Amino acid sequence: MSQTTPPILPEPTLRRLPWYLAYVERLLAQGIDHVSSTSISKALNVDASRIAKDLSFLNLKGKTRIGYEVKALAESLSDFLGFKAEHKAVVFGAGNLGRALILDKGLANYGLQLVGAVDIDPAIAGMVVEGVEIFAPSSLPMLMQKEKPAVAILTVPAEVAQEVADSAIKAGFTAIWNFSPYRVKVPDHIALANTSIYAHLALIYNRLAAAPVKN
Amino acid sequence: MSQTTPPILPEPTLRRLPWYLAYVERLLAQGIDHVSSTSISKALNVDASRIAKDLSFLNLKGKTRIGYEVKALAESLSDFLGFKAEHKAVVFGAGNLGRALILDKGLANYGLQLVGAVDIDPAIAGMVVEGVEIFAPSSLPMLMQKEKPAVAILTVPAEVAQEVADSAIKAGFTAIWNFSPYRVKVPDHIALANTSIYAHLALIYNRLAAAPVKN
Repeated sequence: MSQTTPPILPEPTLRRLPWYLAYVERLLAQGIDHVSSTSISKALNVDASRIAKDLSFLNLKGKTRIGYEVKALAESLSDFLGFKAEHKAVVFGAGNLGRALILDKGLANYGLQLVGAVDIDPAIAGMVVEGVEIFAPSSLPMLMQKEKPAVAILTVPAEVAQEVADSAIKAGFTAIWNFSPYRVKVPDHIALANTSIYAHLALIYNRLAAAPVKN
Repeated sequence: MSQTTPPILPEPTLRRLPWYLAYVERLLAQGIDHVSSTSISKALNVDASRIAKDLSFLNLKGKTRIGYEVKALAESLSDFLGFKAEHKAVVFGAGNLGRALILDKGLANYGLQLVGAVDIDPAIAGMVVEGVEIFAPSSLPMLMQKEKPAVAILTVPAEVAQEVADSAIKAGFTAIWNFSPYRVKVPDHIALANTSIYAHLALIYNRLAAAPVKN
């Protein structure tokens, strides 16, 4: 079968597919060969019918009467989600969070290659963190031409997130991964994920305060 | 008014409230005094009626005919979301992502105080990263008794995420902040946030592949 443009998937499906991948990779590590939608359903608290529908987007070959073949499902999911391809990215803002992401080797396992970082602080331009060089903003056109990165990772302060997103798009980035709490807006043709890790604390704090555990 | 148990808020509201906070903090930095729901609506692409409803959960005093008082709204949001209180947390898994979170000072700005990390690797037990000590699992009861942390931050491999969550809850943690891609299950009375940053890459990759930008 020839490679075709993948369908635009609903966001909830794109949230769930990595759960299935993490689950079947765990089964794989345990030496389990086959898994049914029902088992995945029980383990992850997701309706079996929903799982079947989500997985129908993949062109699966390993489905048998005793369920999905674990190894084929893991590979198919990883491939379908783009985790096996190489996507070049630049980190904007080499402060604490930016450097933390550079230090986190996990990104490389999910297909993201950091080809540089950009920071307005002249004191850190030229520094190299874990093999990733920090550039002054004036070096961005050179970096774009040399590496052709697609993904701009924003770890700048919330106050400047929109401006940095705008300039990244102008420079040629086609995807914005925004880690600032500020919800940036981008044109329709630009891929966007808003990942404010701090916002998740609001959920935890609310649940902690609203439903204190009786000891 | 006396302090009462806050209501259990819907998750979508808890996702949006931090956006409003980031927005009004930006206005505050720009010296702007008042803001209307309409302005917030335009800036963040959220319906004005939804914003008004979300903000109705707060006991706001700064609402006038010309809109919300920016400073009062920022303080009220930050307070309501629990970002001004101190919540003690322990990082489980002091690998790349765990250390990255320890290095990220941003968490402290959102009310999270890291009182320690736990790792099964005996080679790193006893190490101190940015003032945060890494303990062997056997030291957890001591750490619980001394610090009484509520939030267990999971940065362990996906394969062991559920086991580590189970043992953290058994040890007395009442909230699980799961950074592994594995979707852990917890009892109803335990606060839970699943924050798989890598899963967001699936969204970016899908949008990039499905809708390539014409140059």
